[in-house]
Amino acid sequence: MEIKKGLEDVYVKETEITYIDGELGRLYYRGYSIYDLAEFSNFEETSYLILYGKLPNIFEYENFVRSLKESRSISNGLREFLKSVKKDANPMDVLRTAVSIMGLEENTHVYSISDQSIVNLISKFPTIVAYYIRLKRDLEPVEPDPELSHASNFLYMVNGSKPSEEESKAMDVAMILHMDHEMNASTFASLVVASTLSDLYSSIIAGISALKGPLHGGANYEALKMFREIGDVDNVEKYILTKLSNKQRIMGFGHRVYKTYDPRARILKTYAKLLAEKKGGEIKKLYDIAEKVEEIGIKYLGSRGIYPNVDFYSSIVFYSLGFEPEFFPTVFASARVTGWIAHILEYVKDNKIIRPKAYYKGEVGRKYIPLDSR
Amino acid sequence: MEIKKGLEDVYVKETEITYIDGELGRLYYRGYSIYDLAEFSNFEETSYLILYGKLPNIFEYENFVRSLKESRSISNGLREFLKSVKKDANPMDVLRTAVSIMGLEENTHVYSISDQSIVNLISKFPTIVAYYIRLKRDLEPVEPDPELSHASNFLYMVNGSKPSEEESKAMDVAMILHMDHEMNASTFASLVVASTLSDLYSSIIAGISALKGPLHGGANYEALKMFREIGDVDNVEKYILTKLSNKQRIMGFGHRVYKTYDPRARILKTYAKLLAEKKGGEIKKLYDIAEKVEEIGIKYLGSRGIYPNVDFYSSIVFYSLGFEPEFFPTVFASARVTGWIAHILEYVKDNKIIRPKAYYKGEVGRKYIPLDSR
Repeated sequence: MEIKKGLEDVYVKETEITYIDGELGRLYYRGYSIYDLAEFSNFEETSYLILYGKLPNIFEYENFVRSLKESRSISNGLREFLKSVKKDANPMDVLRTAVSIMGLEENTHVYSISDQSIVNLISKFPTIVAYYIRLKRDLEPVEPDPELSHASNFLYMVNGSKPSEEESKAMDVAMILHMDHEMNASTFASLVVASTLSDLYSSIIAGISALKGPLHGGANYEALKMFREIGDVDNVEKYILTKLSNKQRIMGFGHRVYKTYDPRARILKTYAKLLAEKKGGEIKKLYDIAEKVEEIGIKYLGSRGIYPNVDFYSSIVFYSLGFEPEFFPTVFASARVTGWIAHILEYVKDNKIIRPKAYYKGEVGRKYIPLDSR
Repeated sequence: MEIKKGLEDVYVKETEITYIDGELGRLYYRGYSIYDLAEFSNFEETSYLILYGKLPNIFEYENFVRSLKESRSISNGLREFLKSVKKDANPMDVLRTAVSIMGLEENTHVYSISDQSIVNLISKFPTIVAYYIRLKRDLEPVEPDPELSHASNFLYMVNGSKPSEEESKAMDVAMILHMDHEMNASTFASLVVASTLSDLYSSIIAGISALKGPLHGGANYEALKMFREIGDVDNVEKYILTKLSNKQRIMGFGHRVYKTYDPRARILKTYAKLLAEKKGGEIKKLYDIAEKVEEIGIKYLGSRGIYPNVDFYSSIVFYSLGFEPEFFPTVFASARVTGWIAHILEYVKDNKIIRPKAYYKGEVGRKYIPLDSR
């Protein structure tokens, strides 16, 4: 009996959404290279592309942007909930609960995946995340600004001031790069739920729940922790060699699919560097450490196909844009929600409940003995 | 390229928890026949068995029962939340959100699966469900009674009066029968989340989210709706034949694994009948309709291996015990939570992140065209 533990190399569906070339280190959304999208597109347009399979024309684009903007505000119920949360809560627990409340409030009936639910989810993630960040910092939450793009508005709601052009572009690119990645644990968790014809919110909550795990969305947080732990460029070589000789993982290195440099890491490195040079201080120090970790890491691991992945430099980009490390997974989720929805829409069009098997290797026919005779 | 859509017949793990013999219609928990457990055991003992792999001795049993009893009360935060929910909410959305709040309040850090979290989840599901049922009925919630067993206390908190011996036994048996079923969509959703080393609450929330779907935990609700729709024993044959000639499913019939009579349905039928005869009236009428649906259904579908499944008679048992149909999936969840936890514990002992693949069949290398030229 073959056990497919981890489902490595098991194809669970056909897709027209995302293609990863793990050998060449290339990534395409709907056939468009991630390099082009990062350079020329933005969060809204790429979301549309991933969801609906084509680049929008001007009317479709403006409609989509408008409906996202109009849906950014969160309900009073959600505000009250966020205010009631204690300040040391795990931000992914907060996001998961907030989305669960959204689903409860909307009272979505099974099957129905309305355009409004889709827009609601994509537009409100940043508002929820930023709202809790502000409360945690003992600051007033900032209302969304309809003049700003999705990415700029996210930073504005977090930091209370409008981002610079570089910051805004870096955020847009980082969100595009996190938007989808074919099949992965969180997308798959969403699909398992959707395949029972449960509602969209329930499926997305499963995605958030999986992304919380340190083996998945928690890795960017771990990467920044590592850079901080190293503390100085001069400590890098010793730190990495100690890790390697103890057979420990280098956080932000390696990927089940990419056997070469992750194209997302390559693009994010450019922005991490740009922001580090602009901001100097702690950010620059962390960037320099990261660059050195990359160099030493590739020297020892590159020949085994282990390279920096998306979490490696995203940690520095997110941090320099005003997010504390514990919030990194929530930023990841705010982008990935588009991918989760797109895969759900694609899967349920030709739905089949996901119900694998477990292979029983225990005893059968044990005799029940009453409690007082045990 | 072989696509394993639905993962039918794919083994995702080895297990020593539950064995289903789909050909002979037998079900074993940890090697003990479901017939023995339904007859001689109770919710608490079978929970212990499923979680820890052996029947408890008297000390282990009393300890486990005591800690379940001590953990039944819910926090003030949860009470406030339940009071704030509008009365037409979907009960599974309420349960999902309540468990998310539990996780938030406990602030479980990743990896850790404490005995206390396990007991918390198992003991508090009924309290959450009963609390919301009472509020929905404009009645005061009933506090748990530590004198009562898990199953009796559940009914007591729902109905406000202590259940009869038959009711208590029927509830105990129904919960035992719903406790685990090897791999299935909700258990698998829990495992996908747990495999990222996310926390226990997040994993259980994914289970609830999947169980909400009408193709999974929603089926008992659909079965009762069907009995009501039929309205009279004399309408059964025509109703079923119409369904079959329109190639529609008979709710509560058929199972991907059982190709014969589901042993859980067989046991539940006894209790449904017993309760119907005791209670008479609407319950008796529904039971008579169900029995006739069974007869006609098997006549036309039995030769194709399609027989009543667990949802068929559980719907009548749950209804006669005081649960409105929309609450059936929450009762199912209150039992299945034990199975979810047991499979998580078993999986993470030798963890591997669950990350399948999707097979790309779209275009590659599309050329990006700027918005104003589209």
